[in-house]
Amino acid sequence: MSTEPCTPSSASGLADACAAALGRLRTTTPLVHSITNHVASGFTANVLLALGASPAMVDVIGESGPFAGIASGVLVNLGTPSGDYPAAMREAAQAADAAGTPWVLDPVAVGSLPVRTPLAAELVELRPRIVRGNASEIIAVAGAGAGGRGVDASASVDAAADAALALARRTGGVVAVSGPVDLITDGRAVVRVSGGTELLTRVTGAGCALGAVMAAFAGTPAPGLVTASATTADGEAGAVVSGVPGSALIAAVASSVAYAVASERAAARAGGPGTFATFFLDELAALQTGDLSDAARIVIAA
Amino acid sequence: MSTEPCTPSSASGLADACAAALGRLRTTTPLVHSITNHVASGFTANVLLALGASPAMVDVIGESGPFAGIASGVLVNLGTPSGDYPAAMREAAQAADAAGTPWVLDPVAVGSLPVRTPLAAELVELRPRIVRGNASEIIAVAGAGAGGRGVDASASVDAAADAALALARRTGGVVAVSGPVDLITDGRAVVRVSGGTELLTRVTGAGCALGAVMAAFAGTPAPGLVTASATTADGEAGAVVSGVPGSALIAAVASSVAYAVASERAAARAGGPGTFATFFLDELAALQTGDLSDAARIVIAA
Amino acid sequence: MSTEPCTPSSASGLADACAAALGRLRTTTPLVHSITNHVASGFTANVLLALGASPAMVDVIGESGPFAGIASGVLVNLGTPSGDYPAAMREAAQAADAAGTPWVLDPVAVGSLPVRTPLAAELVELRPRIVRGNASEIIAVAGAGAGGRGVDASASVDAAADAALALARRTGGVVAVSGPVDLITDGRAVVRVSGGTELLTRVTGAGCALGAVMAAFAGTPAPGLVTASATTADGEAGAVVSGVPGSALIAAVASSVAYAVASERAAARAGGPGTFATFFLDELAALQTGDLSDAARIVIAA
Repeated sequence: MSTEPCTPSSASGLADACAAALGRLRTTTPLVHSITNHVASGFTANVLLALGASPAMVDVIGESGPFAGIASGVLVNLGTPSGDYPAAMREAAQAADAAGTPWVLDPVAVGSLPVRTPLAAELVELRPRIVRGNASEIIAVAGAGAGGRGVDASASVDAAADAALALARRTGGVVAVSGPVDLITDGRAVVRVSGGTELLTRVTGAGCALGAVMAAFAGTPAPGLVTASATTADGEAGAVVSGVPGSALIAAVASSVAYAVASERAAARAGGPGTFATFFLDELAALQTGDLSDAARIVIAA
Repeated sequence: MSTEPCTPSSASGLADACAAALGRLRTTTPLVHSITNHVASGFTANVLLALGASPAMVDVIGESGPFAGIASGVLVNLGTPSGDYPAAMREAAQAADAAGTPWVLDPVAVGSLPVRTPLAAELVELRPRIVRGNASEIIAVAGAGAGGRGVDASASVDAAADAALALARRTGGVVAVSGPVDLITDGRAVVRVSGGTELLTRVTGAGCALGAVMAAFAGTPAPGLVTASATTADGEAGAVVSGVPGSALIAAVASSVAYAVASERAAARAGGPGTFATFFLDELAALQTGDLSDAARIVIAA
Repeated sequence: MSTEPCTPSSASGLADACAAALGRLRTTTPLVHSITNHVASGFTANVLLALGASPAMVDVIGESGPFAGIASGVLVNLGTPSGDYPAAMREAAQAADAAGTPWVLDPVAVGSLPVRTPLAAELVELRPRIVRGNASEIIAVAGAGAGGRGVDASASVDAAADAALALARRTGGVVAVSGPVDLITDGRAVVRVSGGTELLTRVTGAGCALGAVMAAFAGTPAPGLVTASATTADGEAGAVVSGVPGSALIAAVASSVAYAVASERAAARAGGPGTFATFFLDELAALQTGDLSDAARIVIAA
């Protein structure tokens, strides 16, 4: 067991690292602070709960920052940046950056919309550990295009590869492009994860919840870290896990593989998008760590 | 195939027009900009995705108007008009009206509540192509009564018939009154659609999502319109469909019939409101265009 | 049939009172005004609809107060107190207190977060008929501790017993502590309700919706009250039920028992948290009044 997370150089090594990450997620129950849009917030919380993480949506000015400091991971999703949202997002991203809490930016529909587009440009400077979006959104955030028509992906994943690499080098983090084959890069390695099902595009918030899952995996401690015992104010014993979070690349790949496996199993017995969404939650909860060791769906390019 | 949408004069003609509209909706995937309440937003998006439309919820001041200009159809639902919502709604309705984008007004709980009631009166002047509500709400918007006790329908559909006709003549559009038998009028013809299930009243957002479905059908191009090819900024080929939207009367009737058929099928195998909601999404996705040609549930009065 | 609700002194008497309360809830369809967070609002409304109540979410400044005056019961849930929420909550609680409408306070994640914690302290002075939370939250509201790490329960229910008793004496109402065994007290009697399933903690909003169910039961008229006939503005006959609401202790216990029974039945056939949430709604709708007469799960301490 290594003490410093790094990127396995083989697909099977990466798959094994993903499996181990799921095991640690289940043990540590990372607290995922999600500032996300009201369309996807319920499903996002259910996805996190099904997988084994603990969701909290604290999108209140004055609370969002302090909460980001104690969360295991943070998601900032730009889906509905109205009212207090932008200020709460800035707070959370700044606090996460200051505290070293890994945070994920999901630049929903960024491109030409005049509130979220400059907001994304501002937030991306706060070193998101992972930026997750569809191809159009990643191209837009990277400054390489004018984006899509909204929340749809009109550009292809491969068309966003250069933008993803450039953006990852700029943030020093990982960029994940969602599509029929997901592309994930830390600016050096390019990992492609295949699988999943088209039904994921028929469930609102499925992509948004994937960003939250990435925040959960990114907030899962790296292997070999100390687990300290603590006593709470009211006398109960509890466990506090601290230490540097795991590799963002492994976190993004593990999320993508978990989604692929669970969604395929759900699709195999679903009668349509309604039952699919329901079964998908069941399958996320039923995932075994070994289910993520399947290297067949992972391809690593130099 | 007619080049100008009009109201078929027979129930079977109208049913055939509904079936054709579903076929075009599936082909064109209308982008439905929904400014709707946070209770119903997730279910609304899932209903649109299941049916074959593309939802986007852009309820942000400064974005809502521009987005309404590029959307195929717009829904403005007054369910939770707090914070930035009213301004975003005004923007969207004004932009839709200016751009000729068909938009649907759903005056949830309008009657005596002091924020949404004047807001509805203001918005109704911006020529909604369709106003959809329960009987109490339509009576209230038409100025013919004091409304119900909230989101419930305490007035009967028939009691709202005169109000619906008067309101349709005032807006120049269509008014749809939801109830055990839906009543839909363009100020001349009165169409009644029967069917459906009482279980629809046990799922939150089912009525709200029906308004979004009407926006989707209203934003589906009329038959015979040109489909132009276009190339996006990043080199991908895409299709842009433009032209005058289809008949709002057909849109409202098609929505009502689609709901009736899908909900009956879902109710037939549901064990209660939870499984019903899930199966309803499956059945919307499984609807065939021919399923809407059943004229038995449509009655046209002069 | 008693004309004044009181607390039955035996577990079987209390169970019978719960069963009777469900029967009256089904007959009177209480209108439950829920100001709740956007993560849980959809599920909360569906739980109320499944059980037989009528939900309305009117979280708009200027509307929230008037609506609280006409609602049967009110829920104020502090999950996402951003934007207009705090002002709408104050309005609703003040109007409910003034009108004698029973209202429920759910102090989500109160403890150290700097917006909701003082807000809860302020609202608790407005005599909530029921305060419902997990142990950490109840301890925090009672001023006896520093709260948990957010929406999780890190303190045990028994550790919150003294805080619950003290808080109930302060508000003159009931305090319900949710956990593996629920603890409910009116400051004198302490009732424990066992049963339920761990799967309830894997569905977002399940706890929040329990608060809304308590508002529904608290807004259900006490036995023996007059049911008056009335005629609405548009000529339809309707029933208006008025009178003092039932015992808050019975309301909280009935809610807890209904949750326990329905959730156990749903868990028995669920494949995971997704199907569980769906079946839970079905089982709430299928509950018979006699299902709540099972005294085995109720224990009353002096």
